[in-house]
Parts: sequence; C-alpha cells; structure tokens
Amino acid sequence: MKPMGSIPADYRGENGELIIGGERVSKIIEAAGDTPLFVYDLSIIEARIDRLRAAMPAGLLIHYAMKANPFPPLLGVMAARVDGIDVASQGEMRLALDAGAAPSVISFAGPGKRDREIEAALAQGVTLNCESASEVDRALDIGGRIGIAPRLAIRINPDFELRGSGMRMGGRATAFGVDVAEVPDLALHIIAEGAEWRGFHIFSGSQALDPDALVEAQAATLALSARLSTEIGMAPPLVNLGGGFGIPYFPGEVPLDVERIGIALAQAFETHAHLLGDTEFAIELGRWLVGEAGVYLTRIIDRKRSHGETFLVTDGGLHHQLAASGNFGTVVRRNYPVAVANRFGAEAEEAVTVVGCLCTPLDRLGDQVGLPQASPDDVIAVFMAGAYGATASPSAFLGHGPAQEVLLGG
Amino acid sequence: MKPMGSIPADYRGENGELIIGGERVSKIIEAAGDTPLFVYDLSIIEARIDRLRAAMPAGLLIHYAMKANPFPPLLGVMAARVDGIDVASQGEMRLALDAGAAPSVISFAGPGKRDREIEAALAQGVTLNCESASEVDRALDIGGRIGIAPRLAIRINPDFELRGSGMRMGGRATAFGVDVAEVPDLALHIIAEGAEWRGFHIFSGSQALDPDALVEAQAATLALSARLSTEIGMAPPLVNLGGGFGIPYFPGEVPLDVERIGIALAQAFETHAHLLGDTEFAIELGRWLVGEAGVYLTRIIDRKRSHGETFLVTDGGLHHQLAASGNFGTVVRRNYPVAVANRFGAEAEEAVTVVGCLCTPLDRLGDQVGLPQASPDDVIAVFMAGAYGATASPSAFLGHGPAQEVLLGG
Repeated sequence: MKPMGSIPADYRGENGELIIGGERVSKIIEAAGDTPLFVYDLSIIEARIDRLRAAMPAGLLIHYAMKANPFPPLLGVMAARVDGIDVASQGEMRLALDAGAAPSVISFAGPGKRDREIEAALAQGVTLNCESASEVDRALDIGGRIGIAPRLAIRINPDFELRGSGMRMGGRATAFGVDVAEVPDLALHIIAEGAEWRGFHIFSGSQALDPDALVEAQAATLALSARLSTEIGMAPPLVNLGGGFGIPYFPGEVPLDVERIGIALAQAFETHAHLLGDTEFAIELGRWLVGEAGVYLTRIIDRKRSHGETFLVTDGGLHHQLAASGNFGTVVRRNYPVAVANRFGAEAEEAVTVVGCLCTPLDRLGDQVGLPQASPDDVIAVFMAGAYGATASPSAFLGHGPAQEVLLGG
Repeated sequence: MKPMGSIPADYRGENGELIIGGERVSKIIEAAGDTPLFVYDLSIIEARIDRLRAAMPAGLLIHYAMKANPFPPLLGVMAARVDGIDVASQGEMRLALDAGAAPSVISFAGPGKRDREIEAALAQGVTLNCESASEVDRALDIGGRIGIAPRLAIRINPDFELRGSGMRMGGRATAFGVDVAEVPDLALHIIAEGAEWRGFHIFSGSQALDPDALVEAQAATLALSARLSTEIGMAPPLVNLGGGFGIPYFPGEVPLDVERIGIALAQAFETHAHLLGDTEFAIELGRWLVGEAGVYLTRIIDRKRSHGETFLVTDGGLHHQLAASGNFGTVVRRNYPVAVANRFGAEAEEAVTVVGCLCTPLDRLGDQVGLPQASPDDVIAVFMAGAYGATASPSAFLGHGPAQEVLLGG
C-alpha cells in the first residue's frame, strides 16, 4: 500500500456516502445523468474567501486567477464575491465579462498578447499587466489608434523567488515581466505617454505550502515596490502581490497557515506605510480558493487482477485529471487523495491501483492505494480537483470527450 | 546553447523558407488565416507507409492506431491506405467509420469500455480487443441481448516487455489485457459461447528506437502466440503484434531501421509457420506513421531579454504541443527540433529560449536552442508534431483555444 494525500476536512459522509455541496454523490450523478463528472462545492469556496478576508489585512483586494477554474457558473460566483479577476487570454477575458465582472476590475497578464488581444482589452477598459517594454509600446500605439488611454500595469520579474514553490517565477531569466532595473524608466514612459499607470504585478511563484516562504516573498515584494516608488518618484496606485498559496495534494503535506501570513503582511504594510500608504494592494489566488472545492467522480467499469495486483478500471482518466495521473510521466508519481464515494469513511481493506479508461499505462488515478473493497458500478472520488483539472487536461485525447461539470451548494 | 533533436530529413527550404506538403509556410499560414497551426504533410505519411510495406513481410497487415492523430482528413487518407484502424473509444470508432473505414477492419481496445460502447461496437461489427474475462462476459451478454455474435480478440498482457520503450506495457502487473495463464481458457470460452474469436492483441511497449529490442519483442510475441495456439488447440485467426516503433525526438536519437525489423520478422514467421501458417498478422502503428509528418507553426509575438537571456515569445504553447514543452514539468526537459520557418536552413546565430504565450514557466518550446536571429512576426516551426500533438494537449488551458489543423501534399 502506498500513501495518498489527505482528503480535505470539508468533506463528510452520510450513511457511508460522500456528500458534496449538501448532496449525496448518487443523487448528484443521477441529476447529471452520467460519470465522469467534476463537482464543485460552492460552500467550500465561500469558506475559503471568508477565511482569507478575515486573515488578511483590511482593505487587501482579493483577485481570482481564473486560469485555475473558468467554469462559467463558478466564475459568476467568484465575480460577485472577489474584488478582481485576473485573466490570461482574450478567451478568459470574454468569460470574465460574461460572468459579470466589471472591466475595471479585470487585469490581463501573459507574455504573448497579440495585437488583437491588446485592442480588445483596451477597448473594454481592462488593465494590461505588461510583460515587456515592447508590449507597452504596442499598447500605446493601439490605444492611440483607437483613441483610448490604456490602463497599464507593469509586470515585474522580481529579483527574488518564492522559496519552495511548485513553480518559481522570479529571481532569474524568465519570459514573464520586466527585469527590475528597467521598471522605473518604463513606468515614467507610460505616464509621459498619457496612459493610466496602474502600478505593479509581481508574481514570484506558485503552490507554496511554507508560510514563512510566502511571508518572506510578500515582504520582499513590498520592499521592491517601495524602492521602485522612490526611483520613479511616485507610488504605484496598485500592487498585485501575486499569489502562490498552495494546497496539500500529497502525503505529508499540510494546509497553509494563512492567518500567520496575514499577520506578517499587516506588519509589512506598516513598515512601508510612509512610501506606500496610498497604494492599494491585491492578492491573486486561484488554486487556493477553488482547488479543494472540487471532486472528480468516476465510475468503476472493471475490476481485474494482473500479476497479483488488483486494478479498478474507471470511466475517467488523465484526459480529465492529468495532474492526478502524474502529468504524462513525472518521475516520482504521488497519489492524490481518493476514496470510494459510496463507501465513504469505511476502513481500507485492500491495496488497489485505480486507473482510467485510456490505453496508456500513464493513466493512473491511484497507485496501490488503500481503499475499502470496491466493484464495478461503485464510484471513485478523486479530491483536489477544483483547480487545474478540467481545463488543464487533454480532454480530446483518445476521443472519450470532456467530463461534465456542476456547481453545487453555497 | 543546448542541443535539440534533428529535423526529419523529409523537410527542405526554398529561398530560405520551409516547405511543407509542397507549399511555402507563408502561403500555408495565409490560406489558414492565422497561427498557431498544425500542418500535416501527406506525402511524408505515404512515404512511411510505402517504406513499411516494402520492409515488412508480404501479407503483414498494417493498422493505424488513430489515437496518434485523429484529424478527420488525415484519418480519411489512412482509412484508404492501411489495412485496419485501431480505436480506443467510441468517439474514435465513430470518427473511423465517418472516415470510411469498414467496421470489419476496426478493432477497439481499451481497459474501461462501457456497456454502451461495447454495444455500439458489436452493433457495427467492430472487433473488441477484450481487456479482461469480465469484459468478454459483458460482450457476450450484450451480444446475446441484441442478437449479434460478437467479434472478440483477447488482448494479452505479455510475459515479456519491449526493452527500452518509452512506455512498457507488458511483463508485469497492468490494467491492459489478460495475464497469459488465463488466455487459453478465455479463448475456449469465447468459442464455446458462439462468438467469433478474432485472435490476439499483444502490445508490449511503445516509442522504441532500438531495432533489436523490437525484433526480440516480435519474436517473443510469435513464440507466445504459438505456445497459446497449442494450448488452445487452435491457431488464432489474427495476431496484432502491437507497434512500438519510435521516432527520434531528441538529440542523439536516430531513425529506426525498419528494414532490419522486417527481415527478422519474416524469419520469425518461418520459424512458427507450422503452428501459425494460417494466421494473419497485423502491426499497429501510430506515431511512426504520422509523427514526423506534422509541423506546428507559431508566430513570434515578442522578443525580450531577461537576466542576459533572450526569449522569443510565441502565440502557441503547451496547450497545443504539451510533449514538446516537457509535459508539465518532466525532470529532464529535452528540446524537440525547432527552426525559424522563414529563415530555414540559415546558420544558428544565437541561443534563444522559445516560449509559448501561457502564464506558466513550463510553457517552453525550445530551451536555449541555436537559431538564426528572429523577431516578432517571424514563424517558429516545431517538428515531430504529427502524433500526440493537438489531441494530447490541454487545448482549453488558459482560454486561448485549440490550434487549427491542415493536411497538405500527397
């Protein structure tokens, strides 16, 4: 038996059946008509937002990085409950606007914005987080052509990184943002050209579970913002501190202590109040807000033995939950938390390997995990499926098609 | 500068511009209207088929594993030129039928076939490559209910593996196929129940570049088939030998010597002619037939420097070519062959990192590759894009949408 990650504490069973969003899994599947299925529990998302608002300094804006989960009903809820939506493409921008987000609270980051994407964003009044000096110039040109003063923030490639993060995005050569040394001149250029300078976007990493690393990165972000304010001679109207809050996918990982981060951030704000007292701050989170609120449900089609091992073959797989399968062959594959949804809470009785229906040995949802005995027609729940699941998986692979998605609860 | 894989010898330039399917890249993009774009060159696919037919023993059936590339126009050509189509889902089966493949030459493998998929396959007269005894029983039940004698092959989990293959699929516990010891009884059961027994499907691995490993695996496949024939008391009507032929993606890899494999396979057929003289054999290839025939074209949007490194930011990325990017973070990322399509054949002038437009540091198409100087509006070609490109990538990720695909040449 190999270890698996912990099921989020938000979930409970009722008469041995997993409940999501107040509904029994069997009812959810009946209503949806079929598996495989992503179910998102709005009450868990709301609890995360509430906890974050309580933990963070008053006035800190909460942005949703919609790349984590752009499912329209979920996005509609987020647009109503957070202070901004961060988008990464024109397609995401359109979804955010359709979900009811005001253009003034949408910001658009991404290193390869095309002219037509820039034009669409400017025409809507969306802020561009500019990734290079040449992108700033393209935006100014397009703004001039269509008669709109662009709203431009500078994405900065910070001179530090977020320690221990799943993806480091600062402190070295990267396609993202502008190197620190070039920022003051670029800000002055934006202002001189009559655009609306919207401040900085500083993203130093993602999926960090060490609160001290996040505290350190946020302090460094504020110090960098203060230093650049002095060099520019003007405080930025807004600093997007980035995100980086991780969630515990794997054995031994524990949830992030966001309260501790909030206390340290309040202290950092005080430290820099003399320079940044009029600056607004935003934190940009995706995964942390929605990741634990999603469960992927897939039905067992076959149970078989091979060379002494037991396999549960399901109707789902890596075409929907690529990260849970190990991303097409990471060297050390680790188990997401999984359960038998209709025997929720029952003791583990055997070690089984849960696989998807695809013709590839990489399609594993659980490798020798301990589960209660399960058979065809039972339902496997794969947790931590709310972020980077449906859209970060190759849904066209092998022609089974995408999974359904539903939002419940709240 | 880091090494990259070799551009397939099939490609040439004309006045410094890459030609695909007899057309200049600029013309291809103009006709398509935009980048990013997958272009498939039919003449390369035809050359592969011709070479394979010449190299392999007379009478060997060539099957196309359409999971490698199910683009309908390409599939239509394949259906007309090969002897069978191997599908992995009901969705693929539908595409194969729409492309003109006769049901009698379609076989359907996959460990998680649902009842409705089995029923659809039986109703069409498609052969099921059964992955377990319970799947055989489900097929027999469904066949009885709808009044059709199922065409059933047994997928075998072989007691050997394909050495050095990218994905080993035999010789150990797996979700695929039936362990060897159970095969004779299962074949006799199929026959006794009045179904049409279609023989064996034996797939021991994929993406192998060592011809000796493939020769050895094919010899072992024949030996296993002969041994099982004796145990069953009847030779299988058909043995699908699997595939496993690799293509050279990375630095130092060389194309497979298929002629050598063909000679050895002919000898192996002779060795087992006394037991398998009336058996038909098929080889099932996907990647080898189409992988080198595809090029992914993406336009440079920005050129930037960061910490002394040069980045070319394109309008494409891992949402279309996940494998070229390193599959969301393989530990050792290696470079696929890439080129500046409008300076094809020019000397390398600088080391650059080619990235996609996504907001993730994993979105790299070339890491410090040597290219002629390139600027915004130039076009990057990523080779080896004909297999496991468009459909094996998360096209919905970050909302940029899928890439176009076109088939040219022939």
